[in-house]
Amino acid sequence: MKSFVIILCLVHFVKTACFGGHGMTTFSIRTKSRCEFVDITAAVAAAVRESSVADGLCVVFVPHTTAGVTINENADPDVRADILDHLARAVPDSARYAHAEGNSPAHVKASMMGSSATIIVSSGHLVLGTWQGVYLCEFDGPRTRNVHVEVR
Amino acid sequence: MKSFVIILCLVHFVKTACFGGHGMTTFSIRTKSRCEFVDITAAVAAAVRESSVADGLCVVFVPHTTAGVTINENADPDVRADILDHLARAVPDSARYAHAEGNSPAHVKASMMGSSATIIVSSGHLVLGTWQGVYLCEFDGPRTRNVHVEVR
Amino acid sequence: MKSFVIILCLVHFVKTACFGGHGMTTFSIRTKSRCEFVDITAAVAAAVRESSVADGLCVVFVPHTTAGVTINENADPDVRADILDHLARAVPDSARYAHAEGNSPAHVKASMMGSSATIIVSSGHLVLGTWQGVYLCEFDGPRTRNVHVEVR
Repeated sequence: MKSFVIILCLVHFVKTACFGGHGMTTFSIRTKSRCEFVDITAAVAAAVRESSVADGLCVVFVPHTTAGVTINENADPDVRADILDHLARAVPDSARYAHAEGNSPAHVKASMMGSSATIIVSSGHLVLGTWQGVYLCEFDGPRTRNVHVEVR
Repeated sequence: MKSFVIILCLVHFVKTACFGGHGMTTFSIRTKSRCEFVDITAAVAAAVRESSVADGLCVVFVPHTTAGVTINENADPDVRADILDHLARAVPDSARYAHAEGNSPAHVKASMMGSSATIIVSSGHLVLGTWQGVYLCEFDGPRTRNVHVEVR
Repeated sequence: MKSFVIILCLVHFVKTACFGGHGMTTFSIRTKSRCEFVDITAAVAAAVRESSVADGLCVVFVPHTTAGVTINENADPDVRADILDHLARAVPDSARYAHAEGNSPAHVKASMMGSSATIIVSSGHLVLGTWQGVYLCEFDGPRTRNVHVEVR
């Protein structure tokens, strides 16, 4: 009986060591403009801490079709402005679109940036470069957006 | 001897709980046009069910260089048409390309959309937004395309 | 005592079977041009071999904001040239940018290609299509770039 308890403890230890015993985390963001990049690095890092995962992968997923996620410079905000300006020129509102809702450029930009970002976790921390931040890409705001984070 | 059997069962349980005891799943798609988005959400969801993974990550990977994968609106098909039209304008067939096969625009579009999509799995289900579907992006069809799915 | 040793061995076996007992691998690349695609497929495959992971996921992550990673044709180098030429036309150096460092096009291209690539690992090998290679995308070189690889 005693050895059975020891075995169960070890099994639990392995499972926890593997997965931190956690599931997906979700947080919400209230965006303020039609198009903007919102820095979500701190919220993603908090989800990694809460997961107790030491080494693994962190997936940030945006469950929307007119918003996306990207990783880019965290220092000069002009960089985010330049990326948004480029996307506005590349996918102009004035082009001809079939979709009746009028937000087709937002859908195009969402697929260009992508719905998810994957970041390596090492020693319990996000492995990001010095100048990298994680950004929710709003293309059809202002809205309340959800962001899912899975760490394992 | 009896406790050894119990240990083996528990080890098997942990391994299965971690990974569902499954490897990669592959399915094929016969595309019908040169450029089209094919909804593969149901096939990906089936691979998740077969994996028996409750909580984890699902990676959809397209092993081709003139096709990709993206996540976008599953309701109005005009959205997919608008994304394809945008890509046709942004990467015109009429531009000058060095690659002799004549399908350089397809290669460019494939890198723009990406070779893989990562989706969180929670309680045995793909965590997709209400309006999200998973699409194989064909840029040089019609062809038979393979799609790999790994769930863990 | 003997059974306790057996249990510890099995726990170690399961942990190793799950994660290969390895952490992230990092290698460096010295790029030679301002914009170029560097084939890193062999280095990524080596990281997979060293991880001892049989079945799982390989994430390639570039910790820079003016470089990215993409998967595309490994045969005719003209394809990479065509993708770079397209990006140069789509994100021209001559457009107006706010960021004072003058490398905004590199930031835009990095977000277009993405910071990471995810590849399925099966039977200890990267599951890539016949014509697929993994490329570091340099957009603001020449520089020394780091590439992180996590396999699990």
